[in-house]
Amino acid sequence: MTEAAIVPEATVPGRCAALLVETEPQPETRRVDQIALDLGGIPGTRHHGFTRKAGPREPWYARGMEMRSGRQLTVVAVEELALIAAAMQLPRIAPEWIGANVVLEGVPRLSWLPSGTRLVFADATIVVEAQNAPCRISGRSIARHVDPGGAIAGLSLEFPRQAAGLRGLVASVERAGIIRAGETIAVKLPRQSIWTL
Amino acid sequence: MTEAAIVPEATVPGRCAALLVETEPQPETRRVDQIALDLGGIPGTRHHGFTRKAGPREPWYARGMEMRSGRQLTVVAVEELALIAAAMQLPRIAPEWIGANVVLEGVPRLSWLPSGTRLVFADATIVVEAQNAPCRISGRSIARHVDPGGAIAGLSLEFPRQAAGLRGLVASVERAGIIRAGETIAVKLPRQSIWTL
Repeated sequence: MTEAAIVPEATVPGRCAALLVETEPQPETRRVDQIALDLGGIPGTRHHGFTRKAGPREPWYARGMEMRSGRQLTVVAVEELALIAAAMQLPRIAPEWIGANVVLEGVPRLSWLPSGTRLVFADATIVVEAQNAPCRISGRSIARHVDPGGAIAGLSLEFPRQAAGLRGLVASVERAGIIRAGETIAVKLPRQSIWTL
Repeated sequence: MTEAAIVPEATVPGRCAALLVETEPQPETRRVDQIALDLGGIPGTRHHGFTRKAGPREPWYARGMEMRSGRQLTVVAVEELALIAAAMQLPRIAPEWIGANVVLEGVPRLSWLPSGTRLVFADATIVVEAQNAPCRISGRSIARHVDPGGAIAGLSLEFPRQAAGLRGLVASVERAGIIRAGETIAVKLPRQSIWTL
């Protein structure tokens, strides 16, 4: 790695277009005006807490092993949901259908923000953990909404295929507080570099 | 960002040269043969837990505000400590003096491993949070050891100056378990890319 490969810290603006909390059936969420985050995420919800059970996303761990979470919140972008919908030949994909908690607007390539990026709201801060991987559960939820009769063969599998790199981020709360739909946020990127042998 | 800027996942080997836990005076640590990590870090120590109080490292937060930790463990490299010592014209810097918990060997540019890199031990996994920033407290600790009479003017300030980019990492526990000095580890790098507007 050379010094030239280092991209300095940067801050870009974004907007919180919507906020959502979990509802039934899994993995759906419903819109709310604001969320009072604590350091474990959204109190009283399935993904709240600092730890979680290992699942199919971590085949190298025993299923059900308690592990560090990193998945308190799911963040998506309006623009990326539109790209996924276009790729799946659907008029739209609602953030409600795929378990999104925070919908941002105006942040290009949201899914590619580096780990450690801070999403700074007026009264709370969220830190990016990783890019989210699209799963078949969300694909089935989309199919239930757009094709309840099951006419389109393989629709639920199209989501994991078409949404890779566009499905947003998983994130943790760094500073607890209330976040509000409609807020302008600051996206604070850490210094970036590439590590190779 | 273009596709060409993406560096795929990679795994490189490393060795755990030493393990240390906190002792007095701050910020010193002492060598142990093994550490039983839980998901909060090293049980019973100052940095254990999922949250901590904001301090001078986060001037944008109110001092003392409870925040996400990200600093459970301090990881350093034998090779980088030697580079810092050379830059400070000292024969060596002991990991004991600067609060290190995990000393690795054989991982080039350890301090530059990306956030989200996994340090996979046989029975536990540690995840890299961020590069550690060298502070004056460690500088003063080094000065106490190598220059107890205070003959070298400004020695404690030389550490923050010379150790930037070489002071290792802060990390969290992803999988709890026992880690042992002498273990060979796998360093699992996530897919890497650079985000720019």
